[in-house]
Amino acid sequence: MTVKMIVVGSVAYDTLKTPKGTRERALGGSATYFATVASYFTKVGLVGVAGEDFEAAHINFLKKHGVDLAGFEQVPGQTFHWSGSYGEDFGDATTHSTCLNVFESFDPKLPPAYQQVEFLFLANIHPALQMKVIQRVKKPRLIGLDTMNFWITSALPALKKVLKKVDVLFLNHQEALMLSGEKKLNSAVPALLKMGPQRLVIKMGELGALTATARTRFFTPAFPLSSITDPTGAGDSFAGGFMGTLARTGDLTENGFRRAMLYGSAMGAFTCEKFSLDTYKTLTRAKIEARFKALKAMLKVV
Amino acid sequence: MTVKMIVVGSVAYDTLKTPKGTRERALGGSATYFATVASYFTKVGLVGVAGEDFEAAHINFLKKHGVDLAGFEQVPGQTFHWSGSYGEDFGDATTHSTCLNVFESFDPKLPPAYQQVEFLFLANIHPALQMKVIQRVKKPRLIGLDTMNFWITSALPALKKVLKKVDVLFLNHQEALMLSGEKKLNSAVPALLKMGPQRLVIKMGELGALTATARTRFFTPAFPLSSITDPTGAGDSFAGGFMGTLARTGDLTENGFRRAMLYGSAMGAFTCEKFSLDTYKTLTRAKIEARFKALKAMLKVV
Repeated sequence: MTVKMIVVGSVAYDTLKTPKGTRERALGGSATYFATVASYFTKVGLVGVAGEDFEAAHINFLKKHGVDLAGFEQVPGQTFHWSGSYGEDFGDATTHSTCLNVFESFDPKLPPAYQQVEFLFLANIHPALQMKVIQRVKKPRLIGLDTMNFWITSALPALKKVLKKVDVLFLNHQEALMLSGEKKLNSAVPALLKMGPQRLVIKMGELGALTATARTRFFTPAFPLSSITDPTGAGDSFAGGFMGTLARTGDLTENGFRRAMLYGSAMGAFTCEKFSLDTYKTLTRAKIEARFKALKAMLKVV
Repeated sequence: MTVKMIVVGSVAYDTLKTPKGTRERALGGSATYFATVASYFTKVGLVGVAGEDFEAAHINFLKKHGVDLAGFEQVPGQTFHWSGSYGEDFGDATTHSTCLNVFESFDPKLPPAYQQVEFLFLANIHPALQMKVIQRVKKPRLIGLDTMNFWITSALPALKKVLKKVDVLFLNHQEALMLSGEKKLNSAVPALLKMGPQRLVIKMGELGALTATARTRFFTPAFPLSSITDPTGAGDSFAGGFMGTLARTGDLTENGFRRAMLYGSAMGAFTCEKFSLDTYKTLTRAKIEARFKALKAMLKVV
């Protein structure tokens, strides 16, 4: 099966504490979440790096999901390790430590087949690396990019440069205000679109997410969970469901993007229900469809 | 035409400053906004009090909209006067002064006809007064109640008592967390429903508004305005459009409430476009329908 989409980002181990418990060295990383989720929708390749401590069980987990690993390397050294905790409100995590380890010198390798992919997702890494990857993919149909406050503060010129090449920009509400320099979402939207992307996906945690173009707006509610266990990776999972849907259907109409938003919302919620990627040990396509339908019903007005 | 709905709340003059300009003694007050907006949908009666300084032009404005004034009194003294300002983000207003004046001893009078109304809206006044009004209406079909942080802090026992009698509780996101004592919306919703109301309407400014029951959720986006002039009264206008729609259609199904949410969102946005109630000097029913349709289109996914 030909790889239809690739993701470039981090592969990590996370040590974390949430109000529901703690986990040591749980599987994590933006590319890991994205690829695992997207694997339910399309053939996805993961471009990333891990250390020699990366467990065979975790490679098998990805392989079992059909994730293509031709662009995944294991090199001498330790895997990227993040440690953090969430408070009672499950808001932004407090980072205790970030050990980049082998990720520090990450230089994404794209096998020849990957240079032909139609769908490309640049997870949250240095914008200069994101740019490098874009230049290696010949004729992408759609490029999605995620970024965060850290790059907005520390690498703004590189970020602005790469934004000119991007179709869909993913960021959260606070980052949208920060990057645009605006105080209201309604002013931030046109300011961000002016930077290059045709479309924004602005994530708002338990409220849901907004997608906006110069002419359209669509808001998907979050799927209401009675309880959250671990929100780590929810944004990457949203992106995986969103981009996965587009890669699967090829439908880049407004309605196609709206359906992608609902699948994104469904997947973000699935990730929050268990620690790490544990949800995906048992998640079936049927459960995804049921959640998509529930979200669609939440929007229905006649 | 029989009065179908009444609102009990404040009639005020507002002196305010927004990034778009200043206004002295502009027409304001929760009942004024609610009744003016609701007048586009149903026959509404305003129960409120003003001082002898209340201008004939403002009484004529209400009459011209068909607002029934049998429960409106003008008494010796000055009209309630609020003074405040909004920052660049148009977030919560900073209050400079609140002169209750004649509103301090407000004792709502319900003419006999009003005791038979089907729809009752208790705007943001002391919960003990809200309770008094409820007891005077014989067989209301639907009671809506708005409250704010001030009463949550200063009159919690009275508020909890009145909430037991209410069908729809209106409050903003921050107040929902405050009143429930929860840190997340998903936990706040069941906690608030346990206090009595069957349904919540949680307003989130430029993001939109959520309505929730024990079994349903629906989020309406805010109508995206390219520029805001004055957000004063937006919440009461939302409630006016929402309750007005229900009074007009009598449709209390989930779909009926969803349509009410879209009309509420439309009216909240109209209010923000001009200072005070200026929008309603020229607003037509056709413009309301167009905005309703635009909002409905924003939700459509097939």
